[in-house]
Amino acid sequence: MLEKSCMEFLDILSSKEPVPGGGGACAYVGALSIALGSMVGNLTLGKKKYQEVEADIKELLIKSEELKLEFEKLVDKDAEAFFPLSQAYGLPKNTEEEKDERNKVLQKALIGASVVPLNIARCCCEAIDLLEEYSKKGTRIAISDVGVGAYFAKAALMGAKLNVLINTNLMKDEILKESIEIELNELVEKYSSKAESIFLSVEKSITG
Amino acid sequence: MLEKSCMEFLDILSSKEPVPGGGGACAYVGALSIALGSMVGNLTLGKKKYQEVEADIKELLIKSEELKLEFEKLVDKDAEAFFPLSQAYGLPKNTEEEKDERNKVLQKALIGASVVPLNIARCCCEAIDLLEEYSKKGTRIAISDVGVGAYFAKAALMGAKLNVLINTNLMKDEILKESIEIELNELVEKYSSKAESIFLSVEKSITG
Repeated sequence: MLEKSCMEFLDILSSKEPVPGGGGACAYVGALSIALGSMVGNLTLGKKKYQEVEADIKELLIKSEELKLEFEKLVDKDAEAFFPLSQAYGLPKNTEEEKDERNKVLQKALIGASVVPLNIARCCCEAIDLLEEYSKKGTRIAISDVGVGAYFAKAALMGAKLNVLINTNLMKDEILKESIEIELNELVEKYSSKAESIFLSVEKSITG
Repeated sequence: MLEKSCMEFLDILSSKEPVPGGGGACAYVGALSIALGSMVGNLTLGKKKYQEVEADIKELLIKSEELKLEFEKLVDKDAEAFFPLSQAYGLPKNTEEEKDERNKVLQKALIGASVVPLNIARCCCEAIDLLEEYSKKGTRIAISDVGVGAYFAKAALMGAKLNVLINTNLMKDEILKESIEIELNELVEKYSSKAESIFLSVEKSITG
């Protein structure tokens, strides 16, 4: 999916093609968020003023690259999880038997379609943790980019939340549904305010 | 810039290359936000259930396409505005004369570097207005994508804010600085809460 040009990606996203959808777009915005962290890291490396944090920045850059790759994979995984779901929605539901069969297939597809955006949400939280460290150790000349990255990660997290909920909402397995939603709510609660704090501290350091 | 593949865009953003920076990334996330609106519009068109809003949706789709093109242009404009700024920062400042000259060039470059992200912010607000309409008239089966789009537009708006402030903060022309910052703050105040409301109404309609 991400081998397409940025413009093509926008065009397919705009179209009624089933993928990429909102979930894949969230994974991509998550990747953009951590790419901004890496940019700040790369601008910090080798600078005399930041020699003391050089080793930390190098470690942050490795983690950021791994996370970017993970987000990239999630763009494709989201598309893969959507396919069986759209197939399930297309099944006939005229007789009771058909309804039962459709529901069985649908319930199975809903699991994948919920777990992938949950994984996107988890990765967004990791991005927010890394961006927090960049906000403390990265070069001041590019600090605004850390703030932008933090807000992108928050937006991708909030978007992933909707993509989980739209699927868990139809889940009949109450135990699984609850365990996913509890984790999701905990992540959103903790990390949306953490991202906001990073943003505000960056804004404060810019305006003095 | 957007003719590159999505993966290349991520890689250049991650690098210490001067462009794209946070501003360009915001314009791209703005484009993703309205692309999600268009997706919902395209999924609504031609559906019997939504015949009553067909004309409105068609109009929304035209406005969305125009806005997407505007965001695409702003990715390049942000890069173009950064170039004279980075040149100015690179000028010598050993003598008083050099300092004066550097400051003159810098002050001129700061105008473009502030106005472009201000334009990105304006476009994000337009995206939020369009997404609000999609949230009311678009097909319910893709309503989560409107919520995701609204949060993307909010993130791009907040990111654009930092990119304005980092430049206006160094501006000596107090009148221009104030007029830009007043408009910016009004936009952020009005539209960040509007985006949040769209998101919450979508979340409510999903979870019932």
